[in-house]
Amino acid sequence: MRKGEASRQEILEQAAHVVSRIGLGGLTIGSLAEHTGRSKSGLFAHFGSKEALQLQVLQHAIERFTDLVVRPALTAPRGEPRLRALFERWLAWDRDGLVGGCIFIQAGVELDDQPGPARDLLVRSQHDWVETIAQVLRTAVAEGHVRADADPEQFAHDLNGVMLAFHHTHRLLRDPHAEARARRAFEALLAAARAPAPAPATTRTP
Amino acid sequence: MRKGEASRQEILEQAAHVVSRIGLGGLTIGSLAEHTGRSKSGLFAHFGSKEALQLQVLQHAIERFTDLVVRPALTAPRGEPRLRALFERWLAWDRDGLVGGCIFIQAGVELDDQPGPARDLLVRSQHDWVETIAQVLRTAVAEGHVRADADPEQFAHDLNGVMLAFHHTHRLLRDPHAEARARRAFEALLAAARAPAPAPATTRTP
Repeated sequence: MRKGEASRQEILEQAAHVVSRIGLGGLTIGSLAEHTGRSKSGLFAHFGSKEALQLQVLQHAIERFTDLVVRPALTAPRGEPRLRALFERWLAWDRDGLVGGCIFIQAGVELDDQPGPARDLLVRSQHDWVETIAQVLRTAVAEGHVRADADPEQFAHDLNGVMLAFHHTHRLLRDPHAEARARRAFEALLAAARAPAPAPATTRTP
Repeated sequence: MRKGEASRQEILEQAAHVVSRIGLGGLTIGSLAEHTGRSKSGLFAHFGSKEALQLQVLQHAIERFTDLVVRPALTAPRGEPRLRALFERWLAWDRDGLVGGCIFIQAGVELDDQPGPARDLLVRSQHDWVETIAQVLRTAVAEGHVRADADPEQFAHDLNGVMLAFHHTHRLLRDPHAEARARRAFEALLAAARAPAPAPATTRTP
């Protein structure tokens, strides 16, 4: 990695922390200079404009999420273990990844009414993520861990709801039970999707 | 209602629409003047400061939510019908209530890292709302519509997740199936909480 590239990555990482706290709307070359102690002219040389900076921060966060959540989760054994790895890493991402929590939740609420390249990038990455969750659920169907008629897209939607509720309960309400609630919600989703156990012998041969 | 009060309510309603689209952070006396075509001096006379304006818009939205969602839902028969009324009105609130969707979801993500009176007001109202949902679930326990060991706080948390996922899927992803997905998630929550039907006679007396 060249020196300029290393420094660019460092700045984008700092910017991602800033966005997680104050939002994409608050991220300008000027505010980033303030938060990082860097010169505005140096930041301009790196990023050129506020719009380019916002896009690159989002892209950086997507790559970081892929490295911290997606790739390691996909190394877990197919089926339920992979689903659990994905859930645990996603939870850790919102809890510990950035100082203000998941940047995609922050950006999603900000950008939903703002058409443009930043919104397009975020929506694409959210579609990819939903599809990844659905695909992991399909491995659980194939392994016989969840029922054959489980709906992968609905499961992905519902799991996203669990994580959005965690973010809300943990960050806004500062509820110390937020993580326990998220785990219970995840287990309930999984229980509902799980393949029914074979009926015990006593009822099959009364 | 005095004329000044009527006009104040009108301005607050317009301001709530503005916040639902661009966020509390974007709501200043200046931006409100721009969006409503009113004079800055007139708005200053009504609200005095940006902070007072933000607080009053939040308070106005809380009252509106109470009028449109909470009060009418509580007139439905106790138990499952009341739960369904609450869900349907809540869904309609996010879908149709304000031009940019639920203002509390927008403000929640903005304020979670910003201590102050606006955050305090929002957190109080969110606690009230969670408690209202839990209380409605308790009427369903009392009516025998859901199981006696259902956890009202967990149910309220999970239902909030369903609504957050709806907001995300509808507003950010513009998914035409968002509402159908939210309904399926609600029905699954309810099914999991429902009191088990008495086992059919054939299996009880094989």
